[in-house]
Amino acid sequence: MKKHRVLFLPDNKEIKIAEGKTLLEAARKLGIEIQSICGGIGACGKCLIQVREGEYSSYDLNSRPEHLSTIQSMEEEHMSPKEIKTNYRLACMAGVYGDVVVHIPESSRLYKHVILESGRERDIIVNPSIQSFYVELSPPSLQDQRGDLERLAQKLQDIHKLNDLEEDYQVLPKLPCRVRKDGWKVSAVIWDDKEICELYGGKNLDTYGIAVDLGTTTIAAYLCELNTGNCLSVKSTLNPQIDYGEDVITRINYCIKNRKGTKQLHKAAINAINQLIEELCAETNINNNNIHEMVVAGNTIMHHLFLNISPDPIGHSPFPPALKKPLNIKARELELKINPGAYVYLPPLLSGYIGADNIAVIIAEEPYLKEEMHLIIDLGTNAEVVVGNKEKLLCTSSPTGPAFEGANISFGMRAAEGAIEKIIIDPETLEPSLRIIGSEKWFPESKKIRPRGLAGSGIIDGVAELRKAGLIDSSGRFNFSRESKRLFKDEKGHSQYVLAWAKDTSIKRDIVISQQDIRSVQLAKAAVYVGGRMLMEQLGIKEIDRIILAGAFGNYIDKENALVLGLFPDCPLNRIDSVGNASGDGARLALLNKDKRKEAEEIARDIQHIEKSSDPYFQEEFFQALAIPHAEDPFPTVEKLLPENNRKGK
Amino acid sequence: MKKHRVLFLPDNKEIKIAEGKTLLEAARKLGIEIQSICGGIGACGKCLIQVREGEYSSYDLNSRPEHLSTIQSMEEEHMSPKEIKTNYRLACMAGVYGDVVVHIPESSRLYKHVILESGRERDIIVNPSIQSFYVELSPPSLQDQRGDLERLAQKLQDIHKLNDLEEDYQVLPKLPCRVRKDGWKVSAVIWDDKEICELYGGKNLDTYGIAVDLGTTTIAAYLCELNTGNCLSVKSTLNPQIDYGEDVITRINYCIKNRKGTKQLHKAAINAINQLIEELCAETNINNNNIHEMVVAGNTIMHHLFLNISPDPIGHSPFPPALKKPLNIKARELELKINPGAYVYLPPLLSGYIGADNIAVIIAEEPYLKEEMHLIIDLGTNAEVVVGNKEKLLCTSSPTGPAFEGANISFGMRAAEGAIEKIIIDPETLEPSLRIIGSEKWFPESKKIRPRGLAGSGIIDGVAELRKAGLIDSSGRFNFSRESKRLFKDEKGHSQYVLAWAKDTSIKRDIVISQQDIRSVQLAKAAVYVGGRMLMEQLGIKEIDRIILAGAFGNYIDKENALVLGLFPDCPLNRIDSVGNASGDGARLALLNKDKRKEAEEIARDIQHIEKSSDPYFQEEFFQALAIPHAEDPFPTVEKLLPENNRKGK
Repeated sequence: MKKHRVLFLPDNKEIKIAEGKTLLEAARKLGIEIQSICGGIGACGKCLIQVREGEYSSYDLNSRPEHLSTIQSMEEEHMSPKEIKTNYRLACMAGVYGDVVVHIPESSRLYKHVILESGRERDIIVNPSIQSFYVELSPPSLQDQRGDLERLAQKLQDIHKLNDLEEDYQVLPKLPCRVRKDGWKVSAVIWDDKEICELYGGKNLDTYGIAVDLGTTTIAAYLCELNTGNCLSVKSTLNPQIDYGEDVITRINYCIKNRKGTKQLHKAAINAINQLIEELCAETNINNNNIHEMVVAGNTIMHHLFLNISPDPIGHSPFPPALKKPLNIKARELELKINPGAYVYLPPLLSGYIGADNIAVIIAEEPYLKEEMHLIIDLGTNAEVVVGNKEKLLCTSSPTGPAFEGANISFGMRAAEGAIEKIIIDPETLEPSLRIIGSEKWFPESKKIRPRGLAGSGIIDGVAELRKAGLIDSSGRFNFSRESKRLFKDEKGHSQYVLAWAKDTSIKRDIVISQQDIRSVQLAKAAVYVGGRMLMEQLGIKEIDRIILAGAFGNYIDKENALVLGLFPDCPLNRIDSVGNASGDGARLALLNKDKRKEAEEIARDIQHIEKSSDPYFQEEFFQALAIPHAEDPFPTVEKLLPENNRKGK
Repeated sequence: MKKHRVLFLPDNKEIKIAEGKTLLEAARKLGIEIQSICGGIGACGKCLIQVREGEYSSYDLNSRPEHLSTIQSMEEEHMSPKEIKTNYRLACMAGVYGDVVVHIPESSRLYKHVILESGRERDIIVNPSIQSFYVELSPPSLQDQRGDLERLAQKLQDIHKLNDLEEDYQVLPKLPCRVRKDGWKVSAVIWDDKEICELYGGKNLDTYGIAVDLGTTTIAAYLCELNTGNCLSVKSTLNPQIDYGEDVITRINYCIKNRKGTKQLHKAAINAINQLIEELCAETNINNNNIHEMVVAGNTIMHHLFLNISPDPIGHSPFPPALKKPLNIKARELELKINPGAYVYLPPLLSGYIGADNIAVIIAEEPYLKEEMHLIIDLGTNAEVVVGNKEKLLCTSSPTGPAFEGANISFGMRAAEGAIEKIIIDPETLEPSLRIIGSEKWFPESKKIRPRGLAGSGIIDGVAELRKAGLIDSSGRFNFSRESKRLFKDEKGHSQYVLAWAKDTSIKRDIVISQQDIRSVQLAKAAVYVGGRMLMEQLGIKEIDRIILAGAFGNYIDKENALVLGLFPDCPLNRIDSVGNASGDGARLALLNKDKRKEAEEIARDIQHIEKSSDPYFQEEFFQALAIPHAEDPFPTVEKLLPENNRKGK
């Protein structure tokens, strides 16, 4: 049997293959994954490759037709005139009759890489659990009286190696009509190589999915093209559950006090998501029935309410969730307005206070794949802290209280228009500059948008800037030796620093940071710090290679200010990343690549959950961590920013 | 290690077992299946056995307490005073400390046998796919923060060896409340050892199921206790689809002509079944939420309409069904008013005209387990014919036309009040006696219920009796040499025999059997005969050991008259069974024993479907089979009943 050499570029992989075999077969033997939705019958046009004869000089290549089978008219149907001229072929139709060199364009690869548009660039392999397969069936005859379903399943097995397929009941009523609609040519939408969840007459290979980041405050939804991984549109809205309580604790209490509370909050979340779906579809002109999967990541309370499960038990110690395992639930069970046969995937939970949102952050950051020791902090009502690398991961939940989300803070508010999201205090003049959500410019230079209150990132900035300006000392007390008209005691004797005067605010009151606010932030940040230190202690490590700051409250957290505050142990600034809402990224990753779900499930199984210790050692740690940045631990990285070390300020 | 002998009665099986092991463990080692819902912790009281010390004389048995561990108070809670006195024990609590003889009462066996109440006595092993398992969970603690679901699943795995359980979404919203309701004691309803489909607080081990025989004309529903196999109630109703067409062909045509026809017929069937469920529950005082499974058997058209699948393609050659595989569909998908998490099981189909009802007949009759060569005829609009034994099964569908269901027959009607279901014609006087549905007595002796028409069984009787009385000859022609005022030509010259005079009928017209009616019956019966002969020919057999006549039209078919008619090859009468509606029996068997479903699925896979041959040989066969009983084939069994052989009649 005659054999020929085929070299694939840019992989630079070569194989000797028997004469007459196709380029697609050659690629498969090498493990090069080329798209082929039709199963190699020249029908889908996905396996386009370019023949580059002379490029590899050691080959003795003459004219193309002698080394490949002649191009067929059905191949040409799938190509532009330019592609035909530049020697493109369908890999499945080109038989090898001599040595050839071919180039595989990125668009023909089975697993495409896309860059996730978000605060952090993330490289995603596109490998969704939903795929649409086109098949041409032979019609029934007196000799072949198989059922329509058996006919379809056999073809999917023969061509696409999909064995033991099940089917959604909702496919059955449309089955006889859909298979006959386009002369026994159909596209079957298959979930996880297991279930036929939709059927279209003719060729319909476009599938869409939605990733939802279901936050306590904000719900964000990303509409993605599952074939390509492209994100077509993003919409977000306030979580309407806010009407029943600003944070998860008040919402749990609402559910406890109101018999139909859980149902109400469930409905509120579902309605809001349905509204987002409608907006996404309207903008992109995509039919909501073509949305074949959804991933929803949220904290444990959001997860439970989304599923109409009472969060009551999570409100009391020992805070047990109803379940932790990952779920796949039909969209119609939840009355979500996407294809009724679509599945909604919910990543696993770790505990009552470490939820799918945290798992999403972990699969976005992938510490479990890396040598570097990671410390990941996801700030919210609780701070979830993860420490580890590919050897081991530990996590804990630090009860920060809602200070970083604006509650318990005199002028705290959520990240909405008018919220101060960034603060700089001039160490000489002691005057503040503010960035306000809704404005591109700094206040008070621009007063187009007037401040209403402080967002989470602004609170961190505020306390850290007061410290750097010497307006508070390391114990957090206001330092009245620094003279400023903004620093004074009010009529009740409460010390405060004014960020914006009443006349400039939209609320007609001075927006201040009070001594009490600073105390709240100290308690919160000490809890986070101790959480991280406790996990480091458990792992027996003294140093962190990479710190990841996640959390969606206003702008990205200023990493320098977070370090000045002492939110985590000292670390050079170039090893700290502030990544914003990584849980939304994680949800999209899980939507676009089913292997990320496996990773999520492995993490949930393997990560070790450390309970906050009541050991006196940690109580002592906590008291020391109340200082800004810390009473004992060294903070060389920010040392020169602190007034005691640098009297001139920055 | 000391060992002791335990003898189990009535099995008469003995084992030597280590001291301290329980009787339950001893039984399990011997493969004796004893019920134990609690997993052997003394909580369910199901493993009751009786200790019979002296009964086996070779044993040296002293007083009981020395040979078994002392009876515990929790055991006594599960026993009557009489049981305690007569040495009953819970097998799981009785440790062996000496040789013992124990008797296992039938009620403690895992697989109970019940007798199916129906026309034919059938022995059923009770082994339903639905089982309720009681477990006691340990509550969560700071050291054990598993989710409620994981807690439950782990316990079910530890105690009942149920691995990798999935769960119905509908269980999740009730989960936290149900597990806490009765102090972490719950009963989980498990489907097929695979899925938690309902959860009850406390002990709730009663599960119910419904088997539905979904006939073209009649729908029958059987409410059964799944633990015991007992049938608690049976209800039936006319299939309301009759409003859209008497037979399947007219219903298919209705669906073709009316865009919403399929949906209308689907709804009609679902509503009728829901009505039956309501009646069954009302009568037995059982909550419909405690009905955890349903089996529905019907012909292919009924099956498709039940599932809201258009039967249109089955209306034209090659008659392909939408699917053939067995299905499990959630009750709520079909809006059936039983537990929404319950599954509805539909047995597989064989073809467009051989449906789940026929499979049900086969699993009721079990020819595949027997040496004897069977011929099974299920009479309806089509006759489905099966021939074979445990070596091989063949089947075919004979297009009889609707004659046996009363259509195409002058006074044919369905089996309802007033229908003639049995006929005897006196060979001397040539006067008929009629059994009419709704009356216990024979007409015309009793005229309480007046006849309205002829049911299927009456049609077979009528033609056979005319033949035995010499009123028609073997060619089916009326024989005017037999003088009777009932035999004459009407004003249009059509020959007829009067069964009931106009004055005695409720329709005020003579009820007759016409020459045309006899021709219709001849065509129908010849098709059945040839179907059977064709299959015998294929198998190369000349003789049948057992003939089963199934079909629900009025009374049971009279087997002698069926033979006189020549519906099937000659066979001694004691080898013919007329079993009535065997498909309802099959549906109940599939409900009560999941192994019967496997059998159904194996049959569907293995049975060979023979298409009616267009071979001239069979055309010739068909013409010969038109004669009554047959033109050529011998009918020794009924020979003496035929007038040409026995001029004096019977």
